[in-house]
Amino acid sequence: MNNPRLPDNFYVVIPAGGVGSRLWPLSRADRPKFLLDLAGNGKSLLQETFARLSKLVDTSHILVVTGEHHADAVRRQLPDLEFSNLVLEPSGKESMAAIGLATLLILERDPQAIVGSFAADHIIHNESSFASALAAATELAATGKIVTIGIKPTESSTAFGYIEVGAEIGASGDSVAAHQVRSFVEKPAAAVAKRYLDSGNYLWNAGMFVAEAQQLVDVLGEQRPALLTQLREVADEVSQSGSVAKALATWQAIEPIAIDYAIAEPAAQAGLVAVVVAEFDWVDVGDFEGLYELRRGASDLVTLGDGQVIAKDSSGLVASSQERTIVVAGLENVVVIDTPDALLITTLDKAQAVKALVADLKTRGDDSVL
Amino acid sequence: MNNPRLPDNFYVVIPAGGVGSRLWPLSRADRPKFLLDLAGNGKSLLQETFARLSKLVDTSHILVVTGEHHADAVRRQLPDLEFSNLVLEPSGKESMAAIGLATLLILERDPQAIVGSFAADHIIHNESSFASALAAATELAATGKIVTIGIKPTESSTAFGYIEVGAEIGASGDSVAAHQVRSFVEKPAAAVAKRYLDSGNYLWNAGMFVAEAQQLVDVLGEQRPALLTQLREVADEVSQSGSVAKALATWQAIEPIAIDYAIAEPAAQAGLVAVVVAEFDWVDVGDFEGLYELRRGASDLVTLGDGQVIAKDSSGLVASSQERTIVVAGLENVVVIDTPDALLITTLDKAQAVKALVADLKTRGDDSVL
Repeated sequence: MNNPRLPDNFYVVIPAGGVGSRLWPLSRADRPKFLLDLAGNGKSLLQETFARLSKLVDTSHILVVTGEHHADAVRRQLPDLEFSNLVLEPSGKESMAAIGLATLLILERDPQAIVGSFAADHIIHNESSFASALAAATELAATGKIVTIGIKPTESSTAFGYIEVGAEIGASGDSVAAHQVRSFVEKPAAAVAKRYLDSGNYLWNAGMFVAEAQQLVDVLGEQRPALLTQLREVADEVSQSGSVAKALATWQAIEPIAIDYAIAEPAAQAGLVAVVVAEFDWVDVGDFEGLYELRRGASDLVTLGDGQVIAKDSSGLVASSQERTIVVAGLENVVVIDTPDALLITTLDKAQAVKALVADLKTRGDDSVL
Repeated sequence: MNNPRLPDNFYVVIPAGGVGSRLWPLSRADRPKFLLDLAGNGKSLLQETFARLSKLVDTSHILVVTGEHHADAVRRQLPDLEFSNLVLEPSGKESMAAIGLATLLILERDPQAIVGSFAADHIIHNESSFASALAAATELAATGKIVTIGIKPTESSTAFGYIEVGAEIGASGDSVAAHQVRSFVEKPAAAVAKRYLDSGNYLWNAGMFVAEAQQLVDVLGEQRPALLTQLREVADEVSQSGSVAKALATWQAIEPIAIDYAIAEPAAQAGLVAVVVAEFDWVDVGDFEGLYELRRGASDLVTLGDGQVIAKDSSGLVASSQERTIVVAGLENVVVIDTPDALLITTLDKAQAVKALVADLKTRGDDSVL
């Protein structure tokens, strides 16, 4: 049974994709960010996400979409995930394909379903505020809106997309604020982000969408009819055989596109999108600076892992592997990520550049450590 | 046969001791500096030293003194070292014991011997100048002087001891400059080192001593009679049994003291010491800054080892192990020393502090990585 504040026809999709390459070499192609215990509580981000939603929604209503090669790891991490609720992609096709496929599968089970999609690798504190936001979002979704949950920016970050809010919408008994959405905007340059923050009219886009399943499918059909046709073929095959395998050619032909572009932005232009303003703390650990902030305690030096770290006159982030003693001396804001086959040394303020480094490695053909 | 410019009664002692802990974790208790290929030419410092002296002196006249636990490594590195010319110490007792013991063993072979002692871990370029300096030193030694070879300072280094020079001595046909030595001074503070450099009256003490064996023994007998007695006991045992083993208690009781204190300084006070001014390039790679300078080529980033190193916007010294890819980004003058069981990350200007770090590790009981 779902939480009393959420409707019984509410389903959850957790797209678990994305390596998180700015966290290389902690994150790897075969050990992506969502499988890592970044919060340091013994649970991976995916496990935390699943646990958080399991408290609100019956596990029979929670679907996880991930790459075939992560199937074993995900099943191991999520013993309570129902076998038929794990949807395996033969290759990554961005969020529209993942969420679209899951939505079609949910529609077959319940034509009245309301679907909520939540990233597998975000951290949310204050779960009761999260539940209130979800309740408000499902209520708005039942009125035909595509609803996102926006985060009040605490700084002019260039790491997130933004949501431009419009008129307020009277919404929920929980007195959660909701607004029309004017537009979705991409990760901005620093000056633009500053302007967004100062204006007070922008929220961070946390990639959470709640809508009637049929509504999502309808908008997709208008915006990307070919993509919807392809996803229907794949969904039919999954329903029959339990696997994408026999529709592989169709899957491979699918356009990789984010749901933000395929649905959210055009729907916003049509006045169909609303945003619920989150009152909970939300963290998307995108890079080592984010990880440092997340794990920072009393000390300026954050150490991760079970290996021995000895630091002198140093600050920053040191992730150790058990095989070796690490000594760091005389370096401020350093980042040391030591893994058995790859070692990264950089600084917190270069954290965003790690993605480019990884791309470099790929260009060189050093795929073995990616 | 010795080189024609050197007397036939010339013998060489190479004391091979000292871990070189400022080069940790490259250097280790069981892999000390002298066994390492720091110059990057495929030969260890000890091999280079032995090869350099073998060109000037018959190998039957070259003795190496090292710790028992290095016996195998030294024999492996020096196949041309005569078996009976490797003197093994049960424990490190500083340079006076090592050189004194070897000198007594040489005296038994040739009461007229002139002995020259040269550190196992120094780098010398321009070998013909080195040969000229040695010729001048042996010539002066034959007049009863204890002769050292001093290096013209190129900077106000605080990493070396200094030699204060006095009146010039007319010496060799090779027109090598020689002086009386006024005093030996310890590694100075920066301001003092600057004064030494500016005065022009100071040379670096490279720890090279050339003297009649009997003269060294006589001065030792005056300065440290107990030590000489102990060394005689040990030398007798080595002559009889080939090993220090049966004189172990005597060896353990020996005072650990450098030859500089035990002999050179008091002899200088007595006017017995001369210095030959080196015209060759001499490098004592004491720390990572020294290693960086030694290996620096066109690039500001020096990489050692066979592992893959990828650097971006970085300078400094990166020593890799083969097991892992190292990526360094956005760090100037960084030092990264990656070994299978220990990883050091610091900066070139903290190079001298590594010794204290290693002492810290010892205090913590982390001897396994030392």
